[in-house]
Formats: sequence, structure tokens, C-alpha cells
Amino acid sequence: MTATAYKFVGKSLPKTDAMDKVLGAAKYTEDMELPGMLHAKLLRSEFPHARVLDIDTRKAEKLFGVHGAITAKDIPVNTFGYNFKDQVVFADGKVRYMGDPLVAVAAESEEIAETALDLIDVDYQVLPAVHDPRLALKPKAPKVHEGGNLCFHRKIRLGDVNKGFRLSDKIIADRFTTPKMEHCHLEPHSGIAVFNEQEGLTIWTSCAMLFNVHQELARILQIPSSKIRIIHAMCGGGFGGKNEVSLEPYIALLAMKTGRPVKMTWTREEEFKGSTTRHSYFMEYKTGVKADGTLMAREIKLISDNGAYTQLGESQLTKASIFAAGPYNIPHVKVDGYLVFTNNIVGGAMRGFGVPQVTAAVETHMDHVAEILGMEPLDLRRKNAIASGDRLVTGQVLHNVLLKETMHKAATEAKWRKDYGKETKVPYIRRGRGVACMLYSIGFTEKPNSSGAMLKVNPDGSVVVLVGSADMGQGSNTVLSQIAAEALGVSVDRVAIVSGDTKTTPHCSGTVASRVTYATGNAVRRAADRIKEILFKPAAEKLTVSIESLEAAADWIYVKNNPEKRISIREAAFTSYQHRGEPVIASGHFNPPNTPLDLETGQGDPFPAYVSATQIAEVEVNIKTGLARVVRMVAVHDIGKAINPQLVRGQITGGILMGIGQALTEEIILNQGETQNPNFTDYLIPTAKDAPEIKTFLVDSDEPTGPFGAKGVGESVNIATAPAILNAIADAVGVRIGELPATPERILLALKKAP
Amino acid sequence: MTATAYKFVGKSLPKTDAMDKVLGAAKYTEDMELPGMLHAKLLRSEFPHARVLDIDTRKAEKLFGVHGAITAKDIPVNTFGYNFKDQVVFADGKVRYMGDPLVAVAAESEEIAETALDLIDVDYQVLPAVHDPRLALKPKAPKVHEGGNLCFHRKIRLGDVNKGFRLSDKIIADRFTTPKMEHCHLEPHSGIAVFNEQEGLTIWTSCAMLFNVHQELARILQIPSSKIRIIHAMCGGGFGGKNEVSLEPYIALLAMKTGRPVKMTWTREEEFKGSTTRHSYFMEYKTGVKADGTLMAREIKLISDNGAYTQLGESQLTKASIFAAGPYNIPHVKVDGYLVFTNNIVGGAMRGFGVPQVTAAVETHMDHVAEILGMEPLDLRRKNAIASGDRLVTGQVLHNVLLKETMHKAATEAKWRKDYGKETKVPYIRRGRGVACMLYSIGFTEKPNSSGAMLKVNPDGSVVVLVGSADMGQGSNTVLSQIAAEALGVSVDRVAIVSGDTKTTPHCSGTVASRVTYATGNAVRRAADRIKEILFKPAAEKLTVSIESLEAAADWIYVKNNPEKRISIREAAFTSYQHRGEPVIASGHFNPPNTPLDLETGQGDPFPAYVSATQIAEVEVNIKTGLARVVRMVAVHDIGKAINPQLVRGQITGGILMGIGQALTEEIILNQGETQNPNFTDYLIPTAKDAPEIKTFLVDSDEPTGPFGAKGVGESVNIATAPAILNAIADAVGVRIGELPATPERILLALKKAP
Repeated sequence: MTATAYKFVGKSLPKTDAMDKVLGAAKYTEDMELPGMLHAKLLRSEFPHARVLDIDTRKAEKLFGVHGAITAKDIPVNTFGYNFKDQVVFADGKVRYMGDPLVAVAAESEEIAETALDLIDVDYQVLPAVHDPRLALKPKAPKVHEGGNLCFHRKIRLGDVNKGFRLSDKIIADRFTTPKMEHCHLEPHSGIAVFNEQEGLTIWTSCAMLFNVHQELARILQIPSSKIRIIHAMCGGGFGGKNEVSLEPYIALLAMKTGRPVKMTWTREEEFKGSTTRHSYFMEYKTGVKADGTLMAREIKLISDNGAYTQLGESQLTKASIFAAGPYNIPHVKVDGYLVFTNNIVGGAMRGFGVPQVTAAVETHMDHVAEILGMEPLDLRRKNAIASGDRLVTGQVLHNVLLKETMHKAATEAKWRKDYGKETKVPYIRRGRGVACMLYSIGFTEKPNSSGAMLKVNPDGSVVVLVGSADMGQGSNTVLSQIAAEALGVSVDRVAIVSGDTKTTPHCSGTVASRVTYATGNAVRRAADRIKEILFKPAAEKLTVSIESLEAAADWIYVKNNPEKRISIREAAFTSYQHRGEPVIASGHFNPPNTPLDLETGQGDPFPAYVSATQIAEVEVNIKTGLARVVRMVAVHDIGKAINPQLVRGQITGGILMGIGQALTEEIILNQGETQNPNFTDYLIPTAKDAPEIKTFLVDSDEPTGPFGAKGVGESVNIATAPAILNAIADAVGVRIGELPATPERILLALKKAP
Repeated sequence: MTATAYKFVGKSLPKTDAMDKVLGAAKYTEDMELPGMLHAKLLRSEFPHARVLDIDTRKAEKLFGVHGAITAKDIPVNTFGYNFKDQVVFADGKVRYMGDPLVAVAAESEEIAETALDLIDVDYQVLPAVHDPRLALKPKAPKVHEGGNLCFHRKIRLGDVNKGFRLSDKIIADRFTTPKMEHCHLEPHSGIAVFNEQEGLTIWTSCAMLFNVHQELARILQIPSSKIRIIHAMCGGGFGGKNEVSLEPYIALLAMKTGRPVKMTWTREEEFKGSTTRHSYFMEYKTGVKADGTLMAREIKLISDNGAYTQLGESQLTKASIFAAGPYNIPHVKVDGYLVFTNNIVGGAMRGFGVPQVTAAVETHMDHVAEILGMEPLDLRRKNAIASGDRLVTGQVLHNVLLKETMHKAATEAKWRKDYGKETKVPYIRRGRGVACMLYSIGFTEKPNSSGAMLKVNPDGSVVVLVGSADMGQGSNTVLSQIAAEALGVSVDRVAIVSGDTKTTPHCSGTVASRVTYATGNAVRRAADRIKEILFKPAAEKLTVSIESLEAAADWIYVKNNPEKRISIREAAFTSYQHRGEPVIASGHFNPPNTPLDLETGQGDPFPAYVSATQIAEVEVNIKTGLARVVRMVAVHDIGKAINPQLVRGQITGGILMGIGQALTEEIILNQGETQNPNFTDYLIPTAKDAPEIKTFLVDSDEPTGPFGAKGVGESVNIATAPAILNAIADAVGVRIGELPATPERILLALKKAP
């Protein structure tokens, strides 16, 4: 079947949950009310680093309406984390950041719970704290954990970087910093836990890695995970901020202790102070280049602030390290990534997982290199761009990378370097354009990360798809329904999907790492193949042909070389149940292949597939106020086959807005570990008014390993945005901002310093 | 592994839902309250047979608090039924029994809904009705349906019955009648329907054949069944009364019409008048026997009152016909079963499915034959009893039938015909003992009836079992958990079960026909075998042995001939997920084999396995009042391996109480189609105070086709009770009651008529 013959793949169907969301009928966890439900709140540390000598909850527990107050002593296993189990559910003897939970209280109302928090006495002994990861690496720095402040060191070694520099005509060095950022999903963390003897524990929460949280919770509570059910509730966004264990242990313990349903919803301030944030980076880049623009060597040092605990920190550092050198062929590369504990808020996954930070650095660094060489920035990129058959810095041979095609398309669509002036009608507003490229990955590195899928065809020929993957709002349920419909040959309006339930749906390693369309989509295809094996048996019998001669499409099973000879899928399904006694149900799974990187050289095949993009930004900078505004963004992405182009455009549009925030406004300001701007007044995210004209293009390609040629699109869409904007600012006003975001203050200061 | 080595099979574990039921925490549908929920009521026909000229709901719809009133015109497809789709959701132009629904109303409260019913005007034109199925077969009888009143004729032909009679020394004839009975599940029918765009229709109901109701509802509503989810709610008993479509279409339509959750709960009166009841029977028996007690021929005519619609009527008639001749070797048998439409309340499935009726007849008839021959009743049975290797009247060669062993054990335990006198200390109270035997089947006849099962082993080695089978309160979830634990070699307390959800659990043909332990249990075993194929891969790798050399037990996977060499199931599961990237999930299904019976001869293999029993009742009869009281019941059952002996004893005890009701008190009294005793004051079910001393024994045997040797136990337990009691009454006071139940009036009347 050729691509053009697809019935449902490549069609912009509306999201399965669109109507309920539009009608206001969609129920988020915060909308759920259960009989007898209690409300829980967390008391968090007031200090970034202190011994906790005593916690006195007696007054709080006596408050009328309070049903329970729990601390570290109430929890069977207090530590958790994805790979490194260094985080505590409750601070036990020591707090390590301002926000470390100490006590959880359940009460009849949120107000009573908050009042109870005020009645808790905590006796702290304040300890010296460390907040700059560079200082934290000094020998005499305060230790956040006993094992020292260097959490993880990732090395990539390709060729001989010193030799590379020796062979270079020019060596260009730059430094960059990127700040901590908050995900700002509009729905804050919210969860409800219910416990009873028969069902065990049931938790509604909108986490993205519910099967991981499920296992973590079983370990924390020391009960079999089969007695815990995590149901992914309707989700108002995650962007990585809902990947890890968050409020689940508190509501679980309180529900088990009180015998009542318990709800906890974090405030926006808690989201900033107590949930994970994007890791901040200090980055040093040095590039050796021939006069003709041939990149010869690149040496990179990354220092990532882990905050007080690890969560997915070392994993994001690995991804950042892999992509730090940019999507270019460079024979000699050395990357050292350091993940460092501080007494700051906790770093975690956020859309792009370290790669937006390093791409902001490498892509503005590339423009600097071009400037030094007197080359056109896109020409420098074209000359060195990675392509299918080339090798990643880890040695992996790449396939189906259409980066050069995205460059060509972006240049064409943006009319790059044609009919373009920097002057505007307003004398103090300057116009500039910048380009940035990126390469990104699908799936996990280092670890297997399987997805399962179960398909049931009912006797009336309608289909239920069961997947563990949570729909975070991005539309995975819609995309997976389209894949199932296409693979089975049934109408998509006869397909229903159940997703994100640790008890009734198959395993999924998470709606993370841009992996769901690819991994779960492949699992759906495999399950569909097995379903067809079942359905084709009665069909072959009825049509008196061989099973191999059959194919399914448009609700029919037909003979491939004689399509008039056919029976309906409904009839085949009915016959299987009612005459053959065989239920039409099958499962499939897919594990994106990868190999762990060598610890010393960083060599290996970290990912199964790669996406790439070129984006060209057009900005206007007010040289009186320093305010930069993005006017236009041309975004050309290589994501394989788009299963649902409208949803892809939605992802790209949202990602560009997020990238604009990274480039221009978003920065968590910390003072001695205390968040100074934990709200939407002082922490500025772009709104619809800040949206530029966005022109998105897809370089359609069929990924041979993906379902119907798809790769994925969740994270890659915000990575090239910030550097394109920063390069456009440099183009407009001649200053390079190495410290993100490029706020008016920083632009003005740079303009003042400029020669 | 020998039977004695089982860890969880054969153990009397408490029911999974016992604690919640004891604590009052179990939530039945009637306990569920949803925001904005409406309450629905049905207006039912006042006449047994009438044309409906007009229905005016305008006044009702204007009543404040009423949100909708629907009739036949609102329903896409109005007819339903299991095989014969002759029943109507709403009477359309004609009512056929007193109880036929005409209008469903949804309102803010039950009271408002009831008031609204009073405001509905129905214009009837009363038609002549027929209530006696024997009269309904006459040519000029009023026609209930256009096609005539004979709904179905089932024939069994073995040998030549006339030749058999010619070869007989004696021919004995009897007539019997059994009444309609109500299931009297303590939880009445109750359901809640919710509709929204994304999820479609969700219905909580405690029906037993939810996958059938699911398909029926999809057909009635003309929407894909994937958009309908039926969740089996906590169930307060069914006994066959919740097998078929009942209130689901009404709440579904009203929820779709109003956009609000809709609950309907039937009153006890509606249960008697508007739900299905046990089919009443007229039975004629004629037996030819040699002087030595050898049964030569048996001719049987059964007339079963179907009521106005068929539901499962023809299926129960088939089963009744198969077992009508009793569990005996008789060379010449002729059975004619007639299912007849009348304008009476609707017949449906009830525990034993026609067989309690025919067994009451054949087993009291056997005592009459013994009396005529001057033989001891048990000797007559022993002489002719069917056994493994013998043929059923359908020609099927039986295996694993231990009827004779149950006879032997029952005689021994009851000290049959030893030290026993009829006199009691009270001169007008006489004591008697009676024996009855029975043969019964597992699973459906005529049709495939598969069950699926899905097993998931989580990374911590705990297990989730997903089955479509509904736990009606009998404990199937407990039994299936035990089978899963045994088959996988994991601790049962690490096993959780999800059951009875048409969206998330695999297909099940119903918690009916005593089939769940056998069919779903076999499906669980098959799924477990596939799970072990997955788990043994990492285990074999770790232990460096072949997969074939491994076995699992007690949470370990070990080398069969070297059990010290082992890894934990937890480690194998974790390795499969985290190192191999293979989720540990598998499904299995089982379809109990059978062949449809020949329509002319009734020959075929109707069932895959058979259970048998002998019960001996001891009664005391007051000859002044006619009141019979059961003092003791020895019940010996051949059910294969008892997976959970305590649950089996519970089934037998409950079944005996139900049989006592059949024998002595329970009878729906109809007058011109109107139920005269639709309540627990006038329709008497046995209570704990009526319970005799019950001694239950199991003739343990390993059924080769069942899971761990199990057959099943749901229905067989009440079949032999009534005839044993009737025979005991005859033994005590010398009169045979051929018209059930043996009320004091009937016993006194018989005593008066006795010579």
C-alpha cells in the first residue's frame, strides 16, 4: 500500500478529547469530588540546607477537621528517583532545598489543612549551603549529599580533539549560560488517592510515566504493585514536569492512614518551588575550523545544576552531551558533562531534555564561528551538516536524517538572504534574521523502554485499543487510534481507546522522550498484525482462499488480487466469537533499540531514530528599550511521516512559543536557593499576543523503523527556536547574548558594552 | 506436580471482596451517586394482552423535575433477545404481558419519576389473552406473536421407545408440574448510565452476561460497541436473573437524551412482575422397566411456559430435554420438549436452567417406579446409574462421571436404610428420608462460549489478572486468582484481579452455565503458560539452562531437577522489562467444546464436562398441618477438583436452601397473567431459620479437561434437593406430590385423598 492510499494516517482528525474539552465536560483531577474526600497539603522546608532537629505536629493534629499528619517516620521506604534513588519523600533529619517536604496533612478542607501547616513547629539547625554548581565542585564546598556534589560525569570522546585543534586554522571559544525554567503546564500537579481492602490503592494523577511511578510507589509503600492502580486522569499539560514521582506518595499514605479519599493539588507557587524545573547549564565551547569552514574539532564542557536531588538529571545530561556538538560532522569531539548537586530546587525532565540548552549554545556559537570566518551562517551549516550515512559523535551510523533538506526548504521559504534590510520604519527598531538547526532523538538512551498495546475487536467489528501511554493533551490517543484503524483496516470512528491505567492497560515506559507515536505506535501495529491473523482465519474459510492472500481495509477483508471477493470485518469478528469460539484479542510490544554508551568514550548507538529541523527567525529589536520581538518563524521539520499533520503543527506552534520563552523571557531567579519569581506575574511565559507569524513545513519522509513511517515530534519542536532568535538578535543589533534569556536588560547592557 | 503439592488450589481462601462486604465498604450500584444524576422509572403495561392505541406523555414531560420521557419511537432498534430477537425494549402497538414496558421517564428524583408515570395516559384496546401453555398450543388460541405460540420444539431420540416399552415388564406413568419462580437476588436490578462525547456510554450494572448485553446494546442503539462500556458493578446475586438485557437500554437512551447520569433500580415488585422468572413446566413421564429394575424405555413430554418473550427460553428447554431422562442408562428414550408463548411474565435463565424442573420430576418418578417394582429406591438408581464410558441420551460418551461414587458416599454418610424409624416423639409428626441423583453440565450447549484471560506480571513480580467474567458474589474472582497464582507459581496475595468490564477485560460469554471456573480458569492457565514462556527467557539466560528445564513455584523460577538453582519471579520480571524491554503480558482463551444437537434426533455432544450428585434428605411432616420441614441434607457432589472448598460448600449450602424453596414454598401465583404475590411476604423463600443440618461431601476427582482438575459448581447444587425432599415426604407420609411446591395445603389434600 502506498502512502497516498492511507485512509487515516496523514489525516488531520480532531483529537478524541476535543469535544469534551470544548464543551467543558472534560473532568480533570481537580474537578473530581469523591464522597468523604479529604484535602492534603505539604509543609516544605524554609531553608535550603539545615538539620531538622524536631518536627512537632501535635497542635496541627488536634485542629478540628484535621485527619492525619505524616512525616518520614510514617513511610516504609523514604527514597526514590529514576536511576539514582537519592531523593526523599519526606526530609528525614536534613533538608536540602527550600521546598523539601517535611509533613503532609489531610483535613476536611484545603483551608483547614493550610491552617494546620501553620501550627507545625519545626526545629531547624541551619547549615551552610551551596547554590552555584561551579562552586559546589570545589573541595571545601558544603556537601549536599554524603557522597559529594559531583553526581555524574558523562564523557564523549571522538577522535583526538587536540589533534583537531592543531589542524585548524581558527579556534573560537564561547561561554553560555541557560537558566532554570518551569514547565508552566496550566494544570498543576493534582492527585486523588482512594484505598480499600479489595481494590487496594487507586490514584488518579496526570503523570506521564505512570508505570514508573507505579513501581516506585510499590517500593515506597512496600506493597505489591498489583494492589496499586494509577489512572492517568485528563491532563492539562506536562512538558516533562509530570514525569516523576511527585505528590503520589503523600496522598497514598494519607488515604491508607485515614481510610478516606485524599486529594492534593499543588499551588502555582509550589510548582515553581517544589516541583522539578529545567536544569540550568554553564557551557564552554571551543571549536577548531579550517578557513574554508570545515569543522575540525569541538571541545565542550557542560556543568548542569542538578539541584538537591537527581530525578532524571543524569539522563538529561547524557542526552545534552550527545547533542552538544550540534548536527555536524566533526572528526574530533570531546564533551565533558558534569551534573552537580546544589541546595537549589530540583532539576528534572523538560521538553527537549537538556538539548534546548546545548543547542542554544552550539547554534549561536556556530554563528560566531561563521562571523569569524566571514562565512554566511547557513553556508557554514550546510558545509558541515550531518546526513544519512554519517556518524553521530557516539559513532552511530545515522539513517533517514533529512537535515539538509530542512535547510534548503527553510532558506527557500524564508527567502534567506534575499530582499532583506535591517532597517524598519521606526528608527530605533532594528530587524534581524537568524537560523538554527538541530538534531534530536526518539526514545530513551541507555535503557530499554518498551510500550505494549492490546487490541480487541468486538463481535460487531468495532475496536478497542488499550495502551499504557498517557495522553498528556498532545493527542496521542488520536494518533494511536489512527494507527490502529489504518493497521486493521477499520474505520477510525469505530475505534475507541483506553490509555494510561497501570491495572488494565499494557506497560508503557512513558509519554516522554518523543517516543509514543514511534514506540507505542509500533506496538499497536504489531498487535494489529496478530489481530489480522485471527480475523483472517474465518475470512479465509468463508472465501475459500489462503490466509496469505488476504488484506484488510475500509472495514472489509478482501482477496488481494481480487478485491471484489470479500467479507466484512464485522462478519469475520462475529464468526470468530460466535462460530469459532475465538475472542479477537491480541497484544504487541515494541522496544526502541539502543545500546548503552561506553562510560569512558561515550561510544554506542543511543537511539533508534533521529529527527532534525531548521528554523529561521525574524526579530525586531528596540534599541532604546532592549525589547526583542519575534515577528516570524519559519520552521521546517524532519519528523518522518506525520500521522496527524494538524497535531504536528500544534506541537510545532506550541514548541516555538516555548522556545520564545526560553530565548527572551523565562528564567527562574534564585537568591540563595529561594525562588524570587514563583508566579506568572514575575515569571513571563509567552502568550498568544507574543506569537509571531509561524510558518511550519514538514520534510515528509518514511522512517523505515516507525509505524507508517513516523518518527515523533513532541520535544524537537522547541529546540532550534531560541538560537534562531538569538542569532536574529545578533543580526539585528550586532550583539551576541550568551546568557539566556535575552531580556531587555541584557540586550541593552550588551549594546552599551558593544564596541 | 501432584495434587497434594498445590499451593493455592484446594485452599479455602477468603473471598477477595469479603472484607469490604463485612465492613460495609462495598459499593453496589444503588450506593453510587454521581453529580447531576437523574432517576428513571418504567411505566409498564396494566394488561396482559392489548393493543396500544396511544401513549400521551405530554403532561408527564411538563412536570417540574422531569428531564425526559422515551417510548418505542425513540429507540433505533426495538427488539432484542439471546437467540430469538422477539422481545421489545418498549411495547410498540401491542403489549404482551402485564409488565411490558411502555415509557421510561428520567427525573430529578425517584418520587418525581413515579409521579410522572401517573401522568401518562395510555389508550389500550384489550385483547383476549392466553395463560396456560397447553391451551396456547390449541389452534384457536390467541396468538402472542404472529408466528404462533409454539416457540420451539426440542426432540431427543435414542433407540426405539416403543420397542423398549414392548420389552418392559412394567410401564409406569406420572405427571408433574413445576411453577414459575423468582430468583430473589437480594440486590435488585440497578444500573447507572453516563454518556459523554469522548468516552461514549458507560454503564454500571451487575449483569452476568455483560459481553452479550454489550453487543445487544450496540445493536439496539446502533452505535459501535467500542463506544459502549459496561462495567460489572459489585453484585448482590443473580442466579440467572441478571443474564439478559434488562434495564440497560432505558438508562442508556435517557443518559444520551438528557446528557446527565441516569440511574434505574427496580423495585421488588418489578423483579417479580417485570424481570425474568424460572420457566414453569408441565411434564408427562412414562417409563418401561424390567422386573429386575432394568430401565428399558422412557418417554417424556415437556411443556415449558415461555411467557411473552423468549430470552434464553429455547436454550433452557434444550438443557431440560437433555437431562429429562435422568442420569441413567436407558436404551430407548424419547423426549419432546415444547416451549410455548403465553401472555404471562417472561421466562428466563435460573440456576439449573430447566434441569431442577425435570429432575424434580424424573427423580420422584424413579421412586414411584421403585415402589411399583418393590425395590429399594437407591438400588434402582445404582442398577441403572450412568458412569464414565456410558452414553448420554444424546449419544455422547461420558468421561469422569462419579455418580455411583456419590451414591455410595451419600448412603454411607446418611446411614441409608439403617437404624431409621418414621415415628418421632410427637405423634402427628412423621419422619422420612428420600434420595435423589442428578447429572448436570458445564458450559453452553449448541454454541461456542469462549472466555479470555489476560495476565500481566509487573516489574515487581506481582500479577494482575484481567477477565471478562463477572463475579456475581459467588467468588469467581477468588477462584481465578487462585488458579492464576498456582499456574504462575506466585503468591496469591500478590495477585490482583480486574473482572467484568467490556472495555478493558477480555471477552467472556458470561458468568452462567457453571462455566467460569472451567472456561475462564482454563483461559487463565493458558495465559499463564504464555507468561512463563516470557519469564523463563531471562531466567534461563541467568541460570544458563534451557527454558524447558525450568518450572515456577512459590515466587521462584527454578531448575526442575536442581531446585536450588533459581531466580525470583520478581527478578525475572524486572529483567524482562528493564533489560530485555519485553513487557510481561499474555492472553489466553478457552472455548468449551461442544457440538450442536441434531434437530430431529437430538444426537450430539452437547457439553465438555459433566458433574453429578446424590443427595439424601430427611424431613419431618406434620400430618395435622401438612407442614414439611427439612431436618437434614446429606449432599455428595462430584464437581472435579474444588479450587476453593469453602466456596464450594457455600454454593452447595445456598443451592440446598434454594432447592428447599423449590420443594416446599416458592411459587409465583398468576391469575390471568397477573402476579398475585410479588413480594417477600407472600412469596416465601427459605431463611436461615429454615436451613436444615447440611452435610456436604465432595467426591474429589481430577477432570482432565478442567483447570487443575476442576469442573464447576454454580448450578448443580440445587437440582437434587427438591426431589430428595419430595421422596422423603412420600417416605414419611406415603403421598407423592407431583405439583410443586409441596405446600401444607397440597400435602394435606394429598393425605385426604390417599387411600
